Amino acid sequence: MDEFALIAEYFAPLAAARPGAFGLTDDAAAVAPPPGRDLVAAADALVAGVHFREADPPDTVAARALRANLSDLAAMGACPHGYLMTLALPPGLAGEAGREWAAAFAAQLARDQAEFDIGLLGGDTVATPGPLAVSITALGFVEAGRALRRSGARPGDALYVSGTVGDAALALALPDAEAALAERFCRPSPRVALGRALVGVATAAIDVSDGLVADIGHLCRASGVGARLRAAAVPLSAAARARLRAAPGLLETVLAGGDDYELAFTVPPARRGALAALPAPVTEIGAIEGGAGVAVIGEDGAPMALTRAGWRHFAD
Amino acid sequence: MDEFALIAEYFAPLAAARPGAFGLTDDAAAVAPPPGRDLVAAADALVAGVHFREADPPDTVAARALRANLSDLAAMGACPHGYLMTLALPPGLAGEAGREWAAAFAAQLARDQAEFDIGLLGGDTVATPGPLAVSITALGFVEAGRALRRSGARPGDALYVSGTVGDAALALALPDAEAALAERFCRPSPRVALGRALVGVATAAIDVSDGLVADIGHLCRASGVGARLRAAAVPLSAAARARLRAAPGLLETVLAGGDDYELAFTVPPARRGALAALPAPVTEIGAIEGGAGVAVIGEDGAPMALTRAGWRHFAD
Repeated sequence: MDEFALIAEYFAPLAAARPGAFGLTDDAAAVAPPPGRDLVAAADALVAGVHFREADPPDTVAARALRANLSDLAAMGACPHGYLMTLALPPGLAGEAGREWAAAFAAQLARDQAEFDIGLLGGDTVATPGPLAVSITALGFVEAGRALRRSGARPGDALYVSGTVGDAALALALPDAEAALAERFCRPSPRVALGRALVGVATAAIDVSDGLVADIGHLCRASGVGARLRAAAVPLSAAARARLRAAPGLLETVLAGGDDYELAFTVPPARRGALAALPAPVTEIGAIEGGAGVAVIGEDGAPMALTRAGWRHFAD
Repeated sequence: MDEFALIAEYFAPLAAARPGAFGLTDDAAAVAPPPGRDLVAAADALVAGVHFREADPPDTVAARALRANLSDLAAMGACPHGYLMTLALPPGLAGEAGREWAAAFAAQLARDQAEFDIGLLGGDTVATPGPLAVSITALGFVEAGRALRRSGARPGDALYVSGTVGDAALALALPDAEAALAERFCRPSPRVALGRALVGVATAAIDVSDGLVADIGHLCRASGVGARLRAAAVPLSAAARARLRAAPGLLETVLAGGDDYELAFTVPPARRGALAALPAPVTEIGAIEGGAGVAVIGEDGAPMALTRAGWRHFAD
């Protein structure tokens, strides 16, 4: 099965709803941006053994790759439009043996396309002697000049996070993780509708991909502010709460966990009324202050010393 | 050297001329498309040992990765705007040892950005246990609805190719290739200005990346036509001409050679007058006919039997 057969059989159908993809038979895609909208573009790469497990099934790889990019669009307040994907297939998946894999991979992409109203626009499929790698560039639209940024947080803003945090990190850390945790890792739910609703409400936003404390740190650095984060306020799923009761030391795993792809964002006091109408549950977990850095406050009211703040790219 | 240091030191400066890149400190980039323009998006991935040689220096990797994508924009008639890049770094390049590599890689990107008026918009830098891989999504603009396509060729159109063909393929095939050939492989010249000039002139266009015969085959399939290609008309550099005189069998390498990133395109008789004003040399190499497939006509006027038409992705 060569590249052309793979594209025609499994990927061209994913481009059918986007006329500008030209059925994946051209050198590039064309996109006509709606008037008054900016284009938003995000790119993320995932490598087997680094960002997902070698043994993860194709639907997990597809969902994590596309949803990580959708989460970046969500953090900018953009609505999804399309994506370009480059796929590097190892020897075991490049030939006929890859047909079953490609079918399951494309089927999950099709489900996610329907759920998030995004379509395949183009890409490249190549062979690699190394591990499977997926690189996606997602394109979306946002009202001109109104993209959510990391840089708008101001002292006095309240700090929020959506949903619950730490499930995916616990799924990775615990060999016997229950399905409710594993599902958060395998199929994170990018907060696209929430991101759209935060345009004009949040002063700053970021998706929690590197780790809650690390990502709030990124937001603080971009904004030139500091943050106080109350550990006890961090929202947990029922499964995570049970795990932390049994092993309180797992709190650090939760605070460093990023793979849930929730949104962290800041809201000034005058706009807090808008929070009642948001399309996703959000929890106030702290406040923005002057200064720099993220102080994580424990149950006893004292700052906690964390040994790992989040995903340190390239670090051992 | 972790991801954040790498980005701040070497990649953020590449984004300085594009305000919508937000200094690479946000989740995504924002692009405000000019009124009346469509966005054009192309993605290509390159893997060490597959698309370039493991021993190739970082400036060759950078130039080939960015220029392959610029060539796709050129084939659509688009002017470049920006690109997103995901970079998968093997263990040898991920740490401090990668600093020198990253500096040379970024320096070549900076030179190419200046030459082709394109800027870095975003991306992702990840670790991989496998070979170095670069995936780039290039974004450009073209007059709304006027992107060059592969699908517009009609019987009676003349078939052209820009520049000279086969130098890069000869550089790969010949262990003692001279510098003039090797340079075409290491630093192909995407035909951006030519692509822009062909909007409204060419009925179909493609960049020659898989191989001259293979790519004209792609164009014919997309257009539902056939082509006759006169082998003796294919334009050769002085170095390639000398090599073919010494070893006529290399003609097949030239016809299958794609890494020069020239443009192949079709022009109807009524528009041939516009060819005089093009910003690059072009040569008529054949004609579009009814039917299907590419007939390569040899010096004797008979169709040649080619054993390899071009780069067969995934094939052995």
